Amino acid sequence: MNFASDNIVGASGPVLQAIVEANAGAMAAYGNDEISVRVRARFAELFEREVFVFFAATGTAANALALSSAVPPYGLCVCHREAHIIDDECGAPEFFMHGAKLAGLPGVGAKLRAEDVDAYLKGLPKAVKQMPPKALSISQVSEGGLVYGLDELAALGRVCRAHGLSFHMDGARFANALVALGCTPAEMTWKQGVDILSFGATKNGGLMAEAIVVFKPELAEALDYRAKRAGQIISKSRLIAAQFEGYFAADHWLDNARHANRMAALLSEGLARLPGVRLAWPTEANEVFPIIPQALDRALKAAGLHYHSWTELSLPETETIGKDEVLIRLVASWATGEDEVRRFLEIASSEVSRQAAE
Amino acid sequence: MNFASDNIVGASGPVLQAIVEANAGAMAAYGNDEISVRVRARFAELFEREVFVFFAATGTAANALALSSAVPPYGLCVCHREAHIIDDECGAPEFFMHGAKLAGLPGVGAKLRAEDVDAYLKGLPKAVKQMPPKALSISQVSEGGLVYGLDELAALGRVCRAHGLSFHMDGARFANALVALGCTPAEMTWKQGVDILSFGATKNGGLMAEAIVVFKPELAEALDYRAKRAGQIISKSRLIAAQFEGYFAADHWLDNARHANRMAALLSEGLARLPGVRLAWPTEANEVFPIIPQALDRALKAAGLHYHSWTELSLPETETIGKDEVLIRLVASWATGEDEVRRFLEIASSEVSRQAAE
Amino acid sequence: MNFASDNIVGASGPVLQAIVEANAGAMAAYGNDEISVRVRARFAELFEREVFVFFAATGTAANALALSSAVPPYGLCVCHREAHIIDDECGAPEFFMHGAKLAGLPGVGAKLRAEDVDAYLKGLPKAVKQMPPKALSISQVSEGGLVYGLDELAALGRVCRAHGLSFHMDGARFANALVALGCTPAEMTWKQGVDILSFGATKNGGLMAEAIVVFKPELAEALDYRAKRAGQIISKSRLIAAQFEGYFAADHWLDNARHANRMAALLSEGLARLPGVRLAWPTEANEVFPIIPQALDRALKAAGLHYHSWTELSLPETETIGKDEVLIRLVASWATGEDEVRRFLEIASSEVSRQAAE
Amino acid sequence: MNFASDNIVGASGPVLQAIVEANAGAMAAYGNDEISVRVRARFAELFEREVFVFFAATGTAANALALSSAVPPYGLCVCHREAHIIDDECGAPEFFMHGAKLAGLPGVGAKLRAEDVDAYLKGLPKAVKQMPPKALSISQVSEGGLVYGLDELAALGRVCRAHGLSFHMDGARFANALVALGCTPAEMTWKQGVDILSFGATKNGGLMAEAIVVFKPELAEALDYRAKRAGQIISKSRLIAAQFEGYFAADHWLDNARHANRMAALLSEGLARLPGVRLAWPTEANEVFPIIPQALDRALKAAGLHYHSWTELSLPETETIGKDEVLIRLVASWATGEDEVRRFLEIASSEVSRQAAE
Repeated sequence: MNFASDNIVGASGPVLQAIVEANAGAMAAYGNDEISVRVRARFAELFEREVFVFFAATGTAANALALSSAVPPYGLCVCHREAHIIDDECGAPEFFMHGAKLAGLPGVGAKLRAEDVDAYLKGLPKAVKQMPPKALSISQVSEGGLVYGLDELAALGRVCRAHGLSFHMDGARFANALVALGCTPAEMTWKQGVDILSFGATKNGGLMAEAIVVFKPELAEALDYRAKRAGQIISKSRLIAAQFEGYFAADHWLDNARHANRMAALLSEGLARLPGVRLAWPTEANEVFPIIPQALDRALKAAGLHYHSWTELSLPETETIGKDEVLIRLVASWATGEDEVRRFLEIASSEVSRQAAE
Repeated sequence: MNFASDNIVGASGPVLQAIVEANAGAMAAYGNDEISVRVRARFAELFEREVFVFFAATGTAANALALSSAVPPYGLCVCHREAHIIDDECGAPEFFMHGAKLAGLPGVGAKLRAEDVDAYLKGLPKAVKQMPPKALSISQVSEGGLVYGLDELAALGRVCRAHGLSFHMDGARFANALVALGCTPAEMTWKQGVDILSFGATKNGGLMAEAIVVFKPELAEALDYRAKRAGQIISKSRLIAAQFEGYFAADHWLDNARHANRMAALLSEGLARLPGVRLAWPTEANEVFPIIPQALDRALKAAGLHYHSWTELSLPETETIGKDEVLIRLVASWATGEDEVRRFLEIASSEVSRQAAE
Repeated sequence: MNFASDNIVGASGPVLQAIVEANAGAMAAYGNDEISVRVRARFAELFEREVFVFFAATGTAANALALSSAVPPYGLCVCHREAHIIDDECGAPEFFMHGAKLAGLPGVGAKLRAEDVDAYLKGLPKAVKQMPPKALSISQVSEGGLVYGLDELAALGRVCRAHGLSFHMDGARFANALVALGCTPAEMTWKQGVDILSFGATKNGGLMAEAIVVFKPELAEALDYRAKRAGQIISKSRLIAAQFEGYFAADHWLDNARHANRMAALLSEGLARLPGVRLAWPTEANEVFPIIPQALDRALKAAGLHYHSWTELSLPETETIGKDEVLIRLVASWATGEDEVRRFLEIASSEVSRQAAE
Repeated sequence: MNFASDNIVGASGPVLQAIVEANAGAMAAYGNDEISVRVRARFAELFEREVFVFFAATGTAANALALSSAVPPYGLCVCHREAHIIDDECGAPEFFMHGAKLAGLPGVGAKLRAEDVDAYLKGLPKAVKQMPPKALSISQVSEGGLVYGLDELAALGRVCRAHGLSFHMDGARFANALVALGCTPAEMTWKQGVDILSFGATKNGGLMAEAIVVFKPELAEALDYRAKRAGQIISKSRLIAAQFEGYFAADHWLDNARHANRMAALLSEGLARLPGVRLAWPTEANEVFPIIPQALDRALKAAGLHYHSWTELSLPETETIGKDEVLIRLVASWATGEDEVRRFLEIASSEVSRQAAE
């Protein structure tokens, strides 16, 4: 049983089937094939407007490319200080942005508050020594598993407009947020002021399928050149595109996300009921962040369960982790079985009982 | 019928099958899965020594990453002036090398001669204004479809050693060169002084499967960091690795390459026999570069045949293209049918006859 | 009266005179002139060993070039979170290091403690997503005007060795620190493990004269190429070099620094005696950081006095700035007159009395 | 006697005097001083329109910064294949442009013809693999000492407009070209379509004084940030600015340039009269490119005369250099004495006679 991440399983059935079907015959390479054309149209339909779509092989590349179109080499990109782009990509954004800087702000559960972003921007020195802020990047779902509400997104969008920033959303778990909010893709993005989106499918059933979706046309102008020089234009492009066809067909992507979120909710509820265990913050999508006794942590790992421990950087001010406790992250995916969750909870529960009895 | 490139078809059967099989179950992400481990060992076996292997999603990325490990930002990389890295990658090498420069030298059929490289290096000014040369990059098969012989490779290797350059081989068509020479991978690379290799599988049956194979250990030191920050470390890494398992199994890759080369030979022989048609230079792997009458070119295209015209930059000095002629490139692949070749030749032949009769 | 910075005055007499004298006649350009040769030898003498010396036109360029030789594009450079390189150079280090990242740590008075650096380095994840630390950069004098003692430097040097980091010192105010410690240049640098130094002269009497002094030979290897491609190799190089001749002659540089430090001490003592005024931390070189009432701040500015207010980021934990107070920075230089200091103190003193009387 | 370059002498009297005078007293740093403000206004007057002016310490930095504002990292900059930016700056343009590429075209005397540039641009493939052309850069005076006429500039300007390119002029020898044409600065720049200019003063009397003059406002938008992060904003900025005051006062700069051109003309006429010596192309500014017997070359060097030999890349098609001949470059400057020129010619003349007699 593995709750370490949502990229430890392969592609889901419909996605794999779509690849197999698209594989036969000759087609134009480098994005000029008919499947890529169809998929781009599908994105426009989903987002209820004209969009510019670029495929990429990894989420890291999608994020870094998106940011490079919004932030010049001398610019600043504001994000959460635990954002994936700042912590987990070995400097990919700085590489693609040619040395532009990421400024990491605090916020509970790795979520940014519009008023904090606004205050930070207002406090920047007006001087040539100060890199000018050019973009805001948020993760929806956040690195802490929280989901920005539509009002929160709108408020961030207003701050961006007021300060002349482009608004980027890292949607590695876009579908999980979408079904959590129960809104449309349009409502969760451009209608709140999002300018450019990293649309991830890999974690939710894809094999390797990421897209950059651009709402502000000037950000799309050079993205094909940027993608090409980054080695991100796959020659047999139809096999990236085909994954999205399988992904979108019959709401497969939404079903996958709903399942993952439901598994996380189950896990979350079960854990919260255990004595000595509490949630660092609420479970809103497919990730659970419980604070557990270190003894329990050791026992779970000894039982062969896989997951990561987590930093305390984004805890609420009212929360502290005791010296016998640890903050962990559990991730559910489209492939997580309800039986796995139940078995995990049973193990945890019996461990807690056993330890209490000692 | 499409002779435009060897990336217009999907993956070959065994490669696709390997993906499907590797897809099930949970495995560690980011290259730590068991298939990736197996495939790295397979590379060591193939090259008869310890090697360092890094996967990439595109040939452009493999080349640019390989070069970035060998050439510092202030350095010079010598290559042919029609090299893929200089002409076809939208500046990817310059991006990954952070502004290092490609110096393009001439040579018939896009092949470099060791004496020309040596003379160029000796003629460079010794001054701080002159970027110091740090690597030589050749394409095996060359952009003109020619194959460097082992002696030629050894001579280039000696020039590299004499001038302190790393020796990079762009092996986008590695297998086609290998079967053309009838030698081992070791003989075609490190035994002649090659330090780092872009090993391409995509054009010869892969879906998207490229590897960087490093023979000089210091060039491997930071490649994982470089690949990560370039967005080239695929999360579901086993699905890149699996392609290589399918590719190598039962000599599938060599069979594919032999077939492609044989189809090109058929095409070449058939064309050379037509009046008014001649080869710009010999056909040595899976690409044919004939000079044909423009009238024939128009007729072939009108018949729905796909291929590219080519620049005259690498013609032998003794050759010129008449004003009613055109240089074209025809590419055969593992998927090219013998019937397609025969049909192409029939169309060409009857066109030549028809035009002669006019 | 201007206490805003130590770069608001021109060159000192001996430095200007040296330029005028060096101006006549023809000499080789680009660093090959006899004065540059002499000055390089002088640096070796001063540092009591072989050193590699590179001139630059600005401190920003000296720092960024120095770091670019120590930190690869995928690397991390540790520094204080208020370091000049992180806050005041519009991303120059990131530009010259091609996207490498600066990690800013806390510390009172903008000084880093060896144990904090060590703990930070030990806590970094061991993973490819984590940029590997490659250098430590400190400012001697610190951005808060504090001076690292020899023991503190030695401890930082040991941390660097233990973790495989290069050790960079930003010596924009090198002379001020040197006379504060009363040690030799060798003792303050390589004898404690410093590998590469930005040696500033501009703030202490130069017109525009900065040098990079390298103690670890491999860091010097490519610095001439890096400087050239950064547009930092001045054609009439003797006129940079000449400034150092004037600067070093008859201990002019040390006299200048002693004077500046003495003026700051005077200022510091006078201010500390005023009711309602206290120092944020001790005055150790040529900068004073007092916390003063906002009413006094307004009055001083109204009286035409120039200086900057400062951030509270590096205050001791035991210190807080009241809501009617402000932290300011006063800088004394070689050109600051004792009469100016006395006049400043008089104005401040009478203002404090006047306000107390209200 | 030294005809190697025009940067081997120091500053001219009026320029040095201006520095000395500007040195006294306190002034704002980083370009906010009153002298910098005055000089910017003076540039506007000289160019008869609003201009944006940025100072730099070297011509290399001025060129590279100017290009970085016009060419994005994925773009192409067209220039002559012997341009200073491509050959003499160790990759500075590629560094500042973040990997953008320089495409070098041929042309006699290192001058580009508008029709050649147009044909090159029209021939570029329309594909994402092709870096899109974004700027044209010419040197006025050319690297071969030739001067573009106003008609030639206008034609190049039209080609730039037609293809959407920014038009950059490297004016390292701007004054020499200006007095050769006898036109105004406005006529030689923006009136013919030049968008951005590297205005050099160092070679013509400055100590280190270069400026970027921008006519197309959008190219000026971020240049202050770019200059800062390149370490090109000198803290004691008034001392760069002061040089321009001395330079422009009483037409000192034009006098200097006229003198240099006259000395070159004298040299040119004298050499052309010698048997066995001919000019590779006409002398139009302050540089002479004669083809001389190798025996004469050896004799001149033996007599202690300094100058550089030159490449044959830009010879007219009708010209070839015999195997006993060599192409050399002689540069005259504002400091070249007429007696030096006459003495050079006497030595050359008597050598030619002596050799003829042998």
